[in-house]
Amino acid sequence: MSNPADRLIRITDAKDERIADFRNIRERDLVGRSGRFIAEGTVVLRMLARSRRFGAEKILVLENRVSGIEHILEAFDPDTPIMVCDRKVIDAIAGFPMHRGVLAIGRSDPPQDIAQALAGLKDDALVLVCSGISNHDNMGGLFRNAAAFGVDLICLDGQCCDPLYRKSIRVSVGAALTVPYARGGGIGEMADTLDGAGFQLLALSPKGVRAIDDVKPKRRTALVVGTEGEGLPESLLKRIDTARIPQAPGLDSLNVGTAAAIALFSIASALGRVR
Amino acid sequence: MSNPADRLIRITDAKDERIADFRNIRERDLVGRSGRFIAEGTVVLRMLARSRRFGAEKILVLENRVSGIEHILEAFDPDTPIMVCDRKVIDAIAGFPMHRGVLAIGRSDPPQDIAQALAGLKDDALVLVCSGISNHDNMGGLFRNAAAFGVDLICLDGQCCDPLYRKSIRVSVGAALTVPYARGGGIGEMADTLDGAGFQLLALSPKGVRAIDDVKPKRRTALVVGTEGEGLPESLLKRIDTARIPQAPGLDSLNVGTAAAIALFSIASALGRVR
Repeated sequence: MSNPADRLIRITDAKDERIADFRNIRERDLVGRSGRFIAEGTVVLRMLARSRRFGAEKILVLENRVSGIEHILEAFDPDTPIMVCDRKVIDAIAGFPMHRGVLAIGRSDPPQDIAQALAGLKDDALVLVCSGISNHDNMGGLFRNAAAFGVDLICLDGQCCDPLYRKSIRVSVGAALTVPYARGGGIGEMADTLDGAGFQLLALSPKGVRAIDDVKPKRRTALVVGTEGEGLPESLLKRIDTARIPQAPGLDSLNVGTAAAIALFSIASALGRVR
Repeated sequence: MSNPADRLIRITDAKDERIADFRNIRERDLVGRSGRFIAEGTVVLRMLARSRRFGAEKILVLENRVSGIEHILEAFDPDTPIMVCDRKVIDAIAGFPMHRGVLAIGRSDPPQDIAQALAGLKDDALVLVCSGISNHDNMGGLFRNAAAFGVDLICLDGQCCDPLYRKSIRVSVGAALTVPYARGGGIGEMADTLDGAGFQLLALSPKGVRAIDDVKPKRRTALVVGTEGEGLPESLLKRIDTARIPQAPGLDSLNVGTAAAIALFSIASALGRVR
């Protein structure tokens, strides 16, 4: 096993070309779209090290953080450059105080398409379908909650934002790197594909017909959630089963990530998938 | 009824003394501790207008937003100054682009103490007890979810942050102004007070003995949640009932607001309080 301490590259100048990718990470948040993304923090770096779907192009660590994460650094390919710097450099490149002091440029293959991803699932499968989730915090929360309740696959329609955006990964506590996901186009087409693969589709909506805890989920269930403001399109709500979360009167305004968590908890419990 | 359009005060200079309270609201976030707080956005302003516990000292609205919220402005005391300005002024005072364009300085009485607040509750009561919640987003999320499931009272221990911090109010979607809350000291003492008032105390913890959906809640139930990192103190977990949220193995990391939402949903459903 290579000792990462032996191959640390010391960076003393924020303008050093070897850390150009890290400069101004606020503005580079959207590198996900190009198949590259920014991972920050120890928890996320550990998940990146373990991942088979994602790799690291380079790592930048604050000098006083190195000794605490050597076991994580060891897990990366020996060719992965590991650079260290002091606080002045890391704050200068980030454009704001980077308290965490652990950064990596991650690399991802293009996401699978829905049909391809569904083909890889077992007979018992729980899928979360997201339509029009454009807020990065919500996207991160959905991944975090999906991980907690053992979701096998997340399907994103064409209107969803990128789960590999820096803030999404952070809010997901790294689940954006662990829960498999696929990208489709329109929500109607995705519903057809899931239906064809034997999934019971269940739309979560304040206007849902049944209370979520009255639903008897099937072995293959796909929970569909939409954007907070608009909700799911009427055309979809008309053709698939719908469920609502019982709430105090006069309110229908749970955050979409929270609503999904309650529904996933209810479904996963009913199926005996969690205990 | 006074027509608010007749009494608008036009502000053309960001340095105008009449809007001094609004200047640099990022740094003034903590006015809550002095009994004053910043409310932003139409939804929150509407709740402030309706509230009996909170009042408005002054209101500042972007000129193009006035006509859409006249019905809300009418509901405030006619002595409340309503000022209007253009985007240049509002962006200059906030120190960042204030897309919402609706701001108020709210005023609050000191929060009730726990015993006083409990004395006002009905025989059937659902209480949420928060210990050491120091993150303002989490505090806002807890209020939002408490509102959704009809919580009658939130008890905050001395380590909790202020729910009237600007970001908490915003994340709560105004529920920080609608759900009654009280402030206590140590969590142990609060547990004694609740116990004395006939409440069944139930601590939510990844180490909880029973699954939350196996709990048979009593007519007076107090759900206790702690900070995400440390969790609730062992001394408390030893003396009261504990429950956990069933999850996929290897994870115990739901966000505290999300975990509370699931537990409140489960308790409120079991008690028939929501439908």
